[in-house]
Order: sequence, then structure tokens, then C-alpha cells
Amino acid sequence: MKPSIPKGTRDFSPVEIAKRNYIFNHIKEVFETFGFQPIETPAFENSSTLMGKYGDEGDRLIFKILESGEYFKSLDSEFNRYNDFHEQGFFFYEKIIKRAKELFIMTENITSEISESIKENRIKLELQYELQRVLSQKKYISYRLDKTVERYNFLDKYIEDIKRKFADLAYDKVFLEVDNDEMLNIFLFNIYKSFGFKETTKKISEKALRYDLTVPFARYVVQHQNDIVFPFKRYQMQAVWRADRPQKGRFREFYQCDADVVGSKSLWQEVEFVQLYDAVFTKIGLTDTVIKLNNRKVLSGIAEIIGAKDKLIDFTVALDKLDKIGAEGVTNEMLAKGITAEAIEKLQPLFGFNGSNDEKLAQLTTMLSGSEEGLNGVEELKFVIENIEKLGLQSAVLELDVTLARGLNYYTGAIYEVQTNKVKIGSIGGGGRYDDLTGIFGLKNISGIGISFGLDRIYLVLEELNLFQKAELPTPKVLFINFGEKESFYCLHIIKELRKMGINSELYPDNSKLKKQMNYANNRQIPFVVLVGEQELKDNNCTLKNMKSGEQFTCNKDELIRLMSK
Amino acid sequence: MKPSIPKGTRDFSPVEIAKRNYIFNHIKEVFETFGFQPIETPAFENSSTLMGKYGDEGDRLIFKILESGEYFKSLDSEFNRYNDFHEQGFFFYEKIIKRAKELFIMTENITSEISESIKENRIKLELQYELQRVLSQKKYISYRLDKTVERYNFLDKYIEDIKRKFADLAYDKVFLEVDNDEMLNIFLFNIYKSFGFKETTKKISEKALRYDLTVPFARYVVQHQNDIVFPFKRYQMQAVWRADRPQKGRFREFYQCDADVVGSKSLWQEVEFVQLYDAVFTKIGLTDTVIKLNNRKVLSGIAEIIGAKDKLIDFTVALDKLDKIGAEGVTNEMLAKGITAEAIEKLQPLFGFNGSNDEKLAQLTTMLSGSEEGLNGVEELKFVIENIEKLGLQSAVLELDVTLARGLNYYTGAIYEVQTNKVKIGSIGGGGRYDDLTGIFGLKNISGIGISFGLDRIYLVLEELNLFQKAELPTPKVLFINFGEKESFYCLHIIKELRKMGINSELYPDNSKLKKQMNYANNRQIPFVVLVGEQELKDNNCTLKNMKSGEQFTCNKDELIRLMSK
Repeated sequence: MKPSIPKGTRDFSPVEIAKRNYIFNHIKEVFETFGFQPIETPAFENSSTLMGKYGDEGDRLIFKILESGEYFKSLDSEFNRYNDFHEQGFFFYEKIIKRAKELFIMTENITSEISESIKENRIKLELQYELQRVLSQKKYISYRLDKTVERYNFLDKYIEDIKRKFADLAYDKVFLEVDNDEMLNIFLFNIYKSFGFKETTKKISEKALRYDLTVPFARYVVQHQNDIVFPFKRYQMQAVWRADRPQKGRFREFYQCDADVVGSKSLWQEVEFVQLYDAVFTKIGLTDTVIKLNNRKVLSGIAEIIGAKDKLIDFTVALDKLDKIGAEGVTNEMLAKGITAEAIEKLQPLFGFNGSNDEKLAQLTTMLSGSEEGLNGVEELKFVIENIEKLGLQSAVLELDVTLARGLNYYTGAIYEVQTNKVKIGSIGGGGRYDDLTGIFGLKNISGIGISFGLDRIYLVLEELNLFQKAELPTPKVLFINFGEKESFYCLHIIKELRKMGINSELYPDNSKLKKQMNYANNRQIPFVVLVGEQELKDNNCTLKNMKSGEQFTCNKDELIRLMSK
Repeated sequence: MKPSIPKGTRDFSPVEIAKRNYIFNHIKEVFETFGFQPIETPAFENSSTLMGKYGDEGDRLIFKILESGEYFKSLDSEFNRYNDFHEQGFFFYEKIIKRAKELFIMTENITSEISESIKENRIKLELQYELQRVLSQKKYISYRLDKTVERYNFLDKYIEDIKRKFADLAYDKVFLEVDNDEMLNIFLFNIYKSFGFKETTKKISEKALRYDLTVPFARYVVQHQNDIVFPFKRYQMQAVWRADRPQKGRFREFYQCDADVVGSKSLWQEVEFVQLYDAVFTKIGLTDTVIKLNNRKVLSGIAEIIGAKDKLIDFTVALDKLDKIGAEGVTNEMLAKGITAEAIEKLQPLFGFNGSNDEKLAQLTTMLSGSEEGLNGVEELKFVIENIEKLGLQSAVLELDVTLARGLNYYTGAIYEVQTNKVKIGSIGGGGRYDDLTGIFGLKNISGIGISFGLDRIYLVLEELNLFQKAELPTPKVLFINFGEKESFYCLHIIKELRKMGINSELYPDNSKLKKQMNYANNRQIPFVVLVGEQELKDNNCTLKNMKSGEQFTCNKDELIRLMSK
């Protein structure tokens, strides 16, 4: 068996980890200078926390964790008192009897109550009629009971049949070549078909791997609300898992780097997140990024103005494609979705939406003059844009983009997306404001805003632009060649001191051929090699070789330590 | 619904993360000075990689990941051409017919071959006998076919019954109060009972969360053997998951910190791992640790000497309890396990095994004089102990402990365990040499040695001993009070510069009451607060308040930046 890993997952080598950490550490550093603090949540959550939060498609892509064998043994404690199919029949039978008794007692009570009333002669006729009704109900119950007992007999036989079937299996499969495996497939297939995948899954899995960091964060905020100081600024950099079809740049296990603030509606935060993106990308040398900004309220306002408020999603999905399919394409798609030609006519200004951010803001103000919500959105955009203009960015460009929609259902205010001009790869970051994230867990009126970095894409971009020079691989600085026991012991004394000073150093473990040991140093890109042979041991010194330049010279222990600590 | 997390898992707050990182970073730093490099592996592996590697108990504790709905829809492509139970009957029927035809053709062929041979009259008698045999076989096949078709009829009826049962369900459940959920339990329970949990699980789950870092590491080494420079020194600090019963200090999600070298049998590495433990624990202020050392070969040698080589496990398990149940308890347990009194008599020296490491080595040498393997073990122990004595340790004590066994089946040479004298908590680290870790994945003769740190226990120890002083929480150094839009804008200019210098700083997002903002600073333990009100704005300066001392004074922007960057 050739070992492998599940599709869509990755091993990371030391070099890859060094590069990933280079990105992680810079993001982390900037998060912290902006006042964010880290939290971590478990890899798996209760299924109820995750399911239903990402739509049907998302639910399907969530990795569910199977309950353990113990769990199945105790699937249903009441039911499990009965050990096999036959006894399980009794379980039903007992239920029938119990339910029937309850119903009989109920009707008995009602009839006797009614009889009493009739005796008292107060409202005779109605009560007699009611008595008739109850008595016929009683008869119906009798009938149902008979039918059910009959059906119980069927169940009994059915159980017998299944038992026989299982007994036959061992005999049949020799001839039929139907093995347990196939039989198991049939049973599982029919279970999933009869009860539905969702229901069945719920039964055999109560935990699931986290699908993103946002829902676990919302759960965290609600669960720990009494320990949290609001506004709560948290960042989180952890793996998430999605059972998506793996593609280039799309994995089943990948990291998300999120920063969110909850508990404030301040527009200053919308300003700060633009600065934060700018700071991170500048720091990792990825200048020339474009931070696109939009506002949900502006999109709602436009939909309102053109009289297509009920078609907000269709409208924004189509508008989002403007740079791909052009004005005509967008028009056709909108028409197909039932947006009127008259409405689309009103969108004309957006199709040639050009100029500076200020010019765009002016156009939007004119266009949205009839929509209060729309104008609110414009005001918010203006606040962010003007303040960013005055504060200045280090390397990024902020661009108002009314076609930007992203997770529209989710965002209620600002919407961000970051792209780089240098590599064609889609967005390398995104986020926005959401007004009721924690509402799903019962904590209302907590507004939040957050952004995320697309680590894997940023990695690919830095790789392509050769921007990883500064990513340091934790390689030993010096390798001590192993010439035998005495020599090694001498080396370990020096190594001990080097390590105390934090200098990565190691002894080649075996007394192998010199060439093999030198190759090892080369392959691991260790810049210095120390040779302590018989002669050096006698002279109480060592030979230091620079692996890059090839030069070597003799020095004593103290000199060596001094040189290595430079 | 009150949100919660699965039992045995944890959320980590910023403070907890700071403390955990304090430990992680120190371990990492020492790993790297010793020449180890990081790798990372995916959270889940193919089940085949993990299952069967940890014994039956381990298999049970592995978290399995459920295949997706898509998978179940395509459970068996051949079988799934048939859409329901009835059609699945035909599937079997077709199989029967096909198999029967094959068998008939087979016997036809044999009989005609035999007939030909008889015609040729070469070996008449034997062939006639053979013909008889084949013909009776043919008759037997006819009989089996009849029986199976009969059984197919049963299957047909059985399928009909099941269909009826499912149709009845909807009707019955109103009266019976047997819901889908209960019915699903019954089906699942019976599937697991009929086909076994292991088989069923294998069918519905092909991936599993990693249970430790050692098996994924072995898989990594084999999978990437052509890219690896041997000896390969890797460290790995990642979460692992076990469906264990949660207890104090035992979690279902926890981190392991492992360092291993594979590809060398050098005893210098056994020396180095002692140094590594010493370096890490000294670094985090946990002095007074005891590094216990033993050797599997010594244990085997003792078992050999007392003539209980076949009872090595029983013998070591009992011996391991010496400090808990005393010599008498150990003797009784050994007797119960069938180790003779005569053999136990020979163990007497071990029951009072005292003195310095050198004295113990001397005693072992005497005791094991009859066992080559045992003496080898003593030699290895001697090498490690003597070199450590000569090189010296920073704070730990190395102690030879012949009762130490740990994962005995696994280790083949050195065995380590670390304890602290200051807190009663069991071992805080352990490891040893294994000679054929990668053999399970087909790469033979790769010797390895590795150790592990028990992060959660170390955390508890540092907490109890109050050794976390140096764990730095990434708190903002300075909070700017929000007095309104103009004032905030002024502050953001200063904040921008502070952040560029790497000074954590933030603006309170809302223009809330001063008291609320000051409380926020206190709660988040932010040491400095800057107030820029109307007056300061006019004077182009700000008021800096030291939250600890309470003192405050006015300064200009440059002074502020200078003070904060100290």
C-alpha cells in the first residue's frame, strides 16, 4: 500500500511552513497593532451550531463526524432494552397496548362525565349527541387497535423473515457471490433513501468540522458574552474544512485569517479595516493592491429606485458580472430574471460608472435621491472614502465599486474585496458589516464588521512575484561533522553553548563517510560546517568551513562561538 | 438554544492563547536550536492510514468522518442501477442466472473434454469416473439453482414486505407514536448488529481525524521519502483528537508537540533528547524536573534471565506499579500472571533498586550477565548517562528507572519519561526509540527516536507554580478616547504612526460616555489612555493618562509617540 492523504488535503514541508508563517506572522502582527486579540475554537462544533447556517449547499459540504460505536450501542436506551428484532416487536406491542389503554380511559372519562351531566338533566340533547360521538370514537379506537395488533402480527412475521434472511445470508453468499459488503450497501442505501440523508446523518453524527471561522466566532461571543469586553476585537487564524470538489487553489482543508469587531456600529472601524488591509499587504511587499468598497444600502437603494426591490439578489448577481459580460450581457440577464426594460433603463449611469471615487459618490447621490436607504449608504461610503483620502494609504488604492456584492444576504453595510493587479487570481481578501450575526444564537442587536485574508491565494501571489526572500527557514546554522565518539563528545560541548545562545546547531549523528555528512549539510542548506578530527582534538581547536564560499580555517572554541553568534 | 461546544473540547480566550503560545514558542525555539524543522500534516487522514495502528481500543477512539451525501447516492454504481428494493431483487436474480450459466458452461466444457478423451480411448476408466463426478456436480448445480431461485422468491416477498412496511409506517405512526426517528434507530441498530460496527463504519467513513502525530509522521516519511534528507529531524505541534471519556486534564482535542529523528541509530541522539528536555524545561522556569530513562533491551534481558521472556508485557506492567503497590503487590500480581515464585525471587535486586545511576548500572550489569540483549541495553544506558554526566544539565536530573515501561510494544531501545517534583500531575513528557515505525507503510529498516511534550499538563503546572509572568498578552498599549468625529480623526493620524512603528494602539470606536470608555481600557488592561477633547484639538496636543499610576499630563503628538515607543 502506497501511503497517501485524502484528496484536497496537503502535507506542508519545512520550507512551505516557513513561507506560510511569513504570511501568518505579518497578518498577526498587524492585527495586534490594530488592537485585535486572538481566540481559538475547537476543530469540531456541535452539528446544531453549524447546520443550516450556510444554506443547503453549505450543509452538504460540511464534514460530519461519526458517533462512536458506544453511541450506537446505546442508540435509544428505551428501545435497546429489546435485544433483537423479535423483542423489538414487543416494544411496539407494548406501545400499542399502552396507547390503547390511555385512549380507552380517556373515552371512559368523557362518557362518564357526559352521563353524569345527562343525569343532572341540564342540557340533555347536546350531551346525548356528544355521548354518541364519544362512543363511536371508542368503537373506532377498538377498530384501530385490532388493525394495529394485526399489523403487529405482520411485524412479528417481518422480523422472523429478516432473521431468516440473515441466517440464509451465510449460505447464499457462497453461491450467489453476494457478500456482506454488497448486502450492507443495500441496507445503507435503503436507509438513506427511506429516511433521507439529512435525517440519517443527524442520527449518526452530532459533531461536524468547522466550515468557517465566522459561525464559531458568533457562537463564542454568545457563549462567553459575560466574560467579553465589548466592543470585542478578535482575530482567529485556524484551519477550516469543506467537502468541496478540490481544484487548483481550492482545498478541503485550508486556513482562514479573520479579524472582526462586534458590539459597535462605528464607521471608524470601516475606515480602520481599509487601513489594516493596506498595512498587511504593504508589509509583505504586495503593493499595488486595490481595496474595493461598496455598501449594501446603496445596492438596496438602487433596487428600490428601479422598482425591483423584490429582485435585489437577481439584480446584484447580474450587476456583479458587469466587467465579465458587459452592459449588454447584464441587461439580458436582468430581462431574463424579470426586471423590466424601464427599470434597467434607470441603471444606465451604472453601466458607465467611471471617474474618481468623489465623482462616483456624486453620481450615486443624484441617482439615489429618491431612496433614503440608498442615500444613507452613500453617506457611509463618503465617510470611509473621505477619511481614507485624508489619512492616506501606504500602498493600496481604495476604489468604490457599486458592482461588488459578495455574500449579499449576509452583509448589511460596508462590503470589501481586495485584489492585486499583479497576478490574475481573484480576490485575496474580503469582508463587510453584518448587523445580526449573533442573533442566530439568541443574542440580538450586536452589530459586527469583519474581514478575512485568503492565505492560499496570497501564498500563490507571493510565490509568483518571488516575494518570499525574507521567509526564514529554521535551518541549523552550523553542522558538526561526526568523526567518532571522542570527537563528537568534544563537539557537543561547543554545541551546548551555541544552543544556549539560541544558535541552531547540530552534530551529525553517525560516524558516516565525510562526503555523506557534507552532502547532508548541503542538502539542508546549512551554511557552516565544523570539523573536529584527531588533529583538532589534539590541538584543542576546530576547522570551520563556509559552505557557500568554500573557504575554511582553523579557530578555537571561543572564536567559533563568537563567529557563529554574529 | 444555549450555544455550547462538544464535550472534551475547549475555546481558548486571548489570555489562554498567550499562555499556550508562551509554552509553544519556547519548545519551538529549543527544537530549532537542536536542528529540528517543522512539518504539518492534514487534520484527517485516510482511515486505512490510521486504523489498526493503535490497537482495538485506539481504533474505537478514532473520530471517523462521514462520507458525504453524494457518496451514498453512489454507494455501489452497479447496484444502484436498480432503484428500489424490488428492482434490487432482480439484481440478485440476474446474478444467480449469470453464475448458473457460468457453472453450466464450465461443467459442459469439462464433460465434453472428458468425452473427447474417452473417445480417444487413452485413459478410459479414470475418465469415465471423472465424467461421473462432473455429471453429479452438474446435478448438484441444478439443485442449488432451484434452491436459490426459491430463495429469490422469498427475497421477492421479503422486498414486498419491506415496501408494505414502509407504506404502513406513515399510517401507523399516528396511532403508534412510533416516529421515523425511532424506526431509523431500529434500522441503524440492526445494521450495526448484523454487519458489525467496524464493517459498517468502514463503509460510511473513509477518513478519520488524526489520533496522534506519530503515525501521520511515519506516513509522511514514506510518502515523501524521495524529498527527505536523512537523518530527518522534524518537529510537529498540532492538534490531535481522541473520543476518550473527558476528564480533568484529558480532552478530546489537544495538542501534541513531538520531535523525532528518523534514519539513524546513533546513541548521541539519545543524549541530545535528554539535553533537549532539560533546555525546554529550564527555559520555561520549570526547574526541578526528573528525566527518567530506561531501555527496552534491559527489560527484555530481565525477562530472559528470570525465564519469563514470553511474559514480558505482564512482567513489565507489574513492575511499572512498584512505586504504587510496593514489592509485595508486584509479587502478587506477577504470581497471578503465572510468573513463578522462583523467577520473582531473581527480581529481588530490582525491588530495592536504589543509589546513584552508576550504582544501578553496576547492579544491572551483574544481574544481566547471562543475557546478551540485557547487557547491550546496559551499555546503551551507560553511554547516555555517562555523557550527560560529563556534559552537565542545566536544571533537570537524569535518573535510571528500570520500572519505566510506557508504550513497551512500540519502543525498542531508550525509553524516556519526564516528571516534575513540584506538582503531582504524572508525566509531562515521554518518548523513546522505535526501530521500525515506517515498516507499517512499507519502508523497512528506518530507525527512529522521538519525544513528546504534554502541553496541557505543562500548562497546569506553570499555572499552579505561577510561572506565566512572562507570557505576554497582545493588549493595546494605548487607547484613544473617542470624543467625536473631528477629535477621532485627529487621533487616527497619531494612531497611524504608532501602528507603523509596531505599537499596538486603538481608537474607541464610539463616542460613548467617558466612563464607559475608561472602563473598556481597564477591562482590557490597556496601560495608557490618550484624551483628545475640544481643548486639546484647539491646542494641537493631547492628554496622556497612565492607567496604573493614575497620573496624567499634556503633551504634543511627537512627545506622545516618543513616550509610547519606549
